[in-house]
Amino acid sequence: MTTDSNPRASGTVRATELHDLIAAFAAIGSTGDGGVCRLAATALDQAARDRFRREIDGRGLLARVDPIGNMFGVAMLAPESTDVVIAGSHLDTQPTGGRFDGIYGVLAGLLAVQALRHRAIAEPGRARRNLAVANWTNEEGARFQPSLTGSSVFAGILALEDAYALQDGDGISLGDALAAIDYRESSPLDLQPVRYVELHVEQGDRLERAGADIAAVSGAWAARKISVVFEGEASHTGPMPMASRRDAMRAAARAIEALYDEVERENAGAHASAARISVYPNSPNVVAARVRVWFEIRHEDEAVVLVISSRFLERVKRESALLGVGVSFAADELRGTALLDSAGVDVVRGVVHDLGLKALTLQTIAGHDALAIQKRIPASLIFVPSRGGLSHNPREFTDPQALDKGYAVLVETLWRMATAES
Amino acid sequence: MTTDSNPRASGTVRATELHDLIAAFAAIGSTGDGGVCRLAATALDQAARDRFRREIDGRGLLARVDPIGNMFGVAMLAPESTDVVIAGSHLDTQPTGGRFDGIYGVLAGLLAVQALRHRAIAEPGRARRNLAVANWTNEEGARFQPSLTGSSVFAGILALEDAYALQDGDGISLGDALAAIDYRESSPLDLQPVRYVELHVEQGDRLERAGADIAAVSGAWAARKISVVFEGEASHTGPMPMASRRDAMRAAARAIEALYDEVERENAGAHASAARISVYPNSPNVVAARVRVWFEIRHEDEAVVLVISSRFLERVKRESALLGVGVSFAADELRGTALLDSAGVDVVRGVVHDLGLKALTLQTIAGHDALAIQKRIPASLIFVPSRGGLSHNPREFTDPQALDKGYAVLVETLWRMATAES
Repeated sequence: MTTDSNPRASGTVRATELHDLIAAFAAIGSTGDGGVCRLAATALDQAARDRFRREIDGRGLLARVDPIGNMFGVAMLAPESTDVVIAGSHLDTQPTGGRFDGIYGVLAGLLAVQALRHRAIAEPGRARRNLAVANWTNEEGARFQPSLTGSSVFAGILALEDAYALQDGDGISLGDALAAIDYRESSPLDLQPVRYVELHVEQGDRLERAGADIAAVSGAWAARKISVVFEGEASHTGPMPMASRRDAMRAAARAIEALYDEVERENAGAHASAARISVYPNSPNVVAARVRVWFEIRHEDEAVVLVISSRFLERVKRESALLGVGVSFAADELRGTALLDSAGVDVVRGVVHDLGLKALTLQTIAGHDALAIQKRIPASLIFVPSRGGLSHNPREFTDPQALDKGYAVLVETLWRMATAES
Repeated sequence: MTTDSNPRASGTVRATELHDLIAAFAAIGSTGDGGVCRLAATALDQAARDRFRREIDGRGLLARVDPIGNMFGVAMLAPESTDVVIAGSHLDTQPTGGRFDGIYGVLAGLLAVQALRHRAIAEPGRARRNLAVANWTNEEGARFQPSLTGSSVFAGILALEDAYALQDGDGISLGDALAAIDYRESSPLDLQPVRYVELHVEQGDRLERAGADIAAVSGAWAARKISVVFEGEASHTGPMPMASRRDAMRAAARAIEALYDEVERENAGAHASAARISVYPNSPNVVAARVRVWFEIRHEDEAVVLVISSRFLERVKRESALLGVGVSFAADELRGTALLDSAGVDVVRGVVHDLGLKALTLQTIAGHDALAIQKRIPASLIFVPSRGGLSHNPREFTDPQALDKGYAVLVETLWRMATAES
């Protein structure tokens, strides 16, 4: 594997290039209000991927796509080595996505790999490992659940065939969707991944409140994601006697209230939500026969998640039974707390210190590809501040200077990882 | 306008014909569990309509279709008169429809008009008015809201153009949908409607509890139907601080609980429901930005509806504001109590008495085409018992003997109305 060496491809990165690229990608699936809707494996995802592939090619990197549609742009800094350090994130968004979530890490990674390729040429013999930028398929889990699909296949914790079989709300499989957008290929990476680094917006407000520039993420909160099905009985909303109704919507509403109530009662700072619902038949004149609600509970301490979720589920069963509504679980996934590679945290903190910036070490509350990839190789996660903690929202915002600081930290972190003796 | 007189068309109605016809129509859109899903102006509705038109033709009645797709089958019992008494109901169903709701009234009307055409020939000079069976478009309001569309246009209380402009959840207009199934025609009825009679299953349990055969319906409960929009803000369900969230789903769930709570607190026997919901973006990882819930409150006393709904709405505004969620109203329709023609009630009660059956006089809780048509001409509504009050459900059931009793009452009621001196 070799890289071509046309002069344009090896040029240095312009100061505004990151901002220009973020703006260019924000136009692909723009919702007209500053936000982006670019669900995984749709035509808009394809457009963003095609543009990303052109950027990879145009910057002299080697394009690769694996069978689950993960994309790579490789720079052979150390052709004598088969090791590669990967920087990346995701191009897909939520339906109400902002312009930084995911895209920032991919584009910063692209420019960092390009810049370090140039630096390696300028400082021959320094690099001991190769570099690559990555775009992981269906990180968001908005169209196909569960999330982190591409990185989980890469990490070996999700079988390729199981990932292909995931279905969206219309019954379309991820495998078919990837084939339809022409990203179900296999051009092997042919290198040995040894480290992963992901740069991302925080999506919370802890950096902002602390007045810090960068977070070195040491691990992740625990999360329990439970999809509850309420089984009532369809009947006319008018004449059917109230006492005879088995109203699945009423049971679901009571359960949503119960979730927040149990979280507040525990008073331990847990986060929780009920954000998705499906109702059958969802007609104004038919008492709901079946309702499904997607609940989640998160806390840094797994025991707290278990205490709250157990109390919540007991209460839901009891209160639903009083309404004549049955309860079952369509999904119940416990993601325990996770640790990211501690040596990586030290590298990031060292870089932040050397650049004269202020670092915070914290745990991520949201899921990220780095958490899946840590199951295979040491992974690092770096946050920059999100204004007001707002994300998955068109008004998601990070200051341009803050984006630049994160980019500088990523470049130096990757360089130290590519040049370290061990 | 004349009817042809082929012998088959003038034959008497067989004893099992009503049950056979109900079974035949239940196969059109069968959900495989005893139920029927045949939404208005779909291909399945077209199939049922085409079958109904063949029945009209085959039984020697004259087929007519008006511009909103209402179908008529006319028997000219008294060709010297331009008056027509109409019997009918609707062929459309809810997504979880049973096999009797609506269809029973249409098919019983069809056979009754056929039978009375034969009787008028056997008893020349008796009939003073003509008869017709009718199928009214989009009674259910499952696909297009509001309900009672065809009968409201017929009654002159909904403009044809406004009815055409109604849109389903996919943005398809009723006008286009009717054109697509070829039921947007105009073959005028050319007669003067003077009375309407609708036979229907009760969909409640009052007849069953009273051990009565037939209800003569004297009027309708009041109903307020309010579609509330909760405006929150999209954000990440993980890291976004709980105190910063503006969670439209949480506000909606609290409102649904509040509705039932206010109904129970008033303790006046009101009926209420929240049966339809739409959530944006409805992704498991995005705090809901916008939720719409369809609420309704019904009571025989309009004042009770207003008391409960006012308290409910005040509470929803107050409690939503505490969550940072705005509230607006996408629809707010008050249907006052209504009276059906009292002379018609007397005719029905007289028929029930003469047939040796047990009658109850009650008010309908559900909406029916008869309520819209009463705005134009005197209308009568006749109920037969529904087992357990269950309706809008595949297990909706009325005993075959009870169906026959209702049919006998309809035939005799129509004959008296067609032959009465005034």
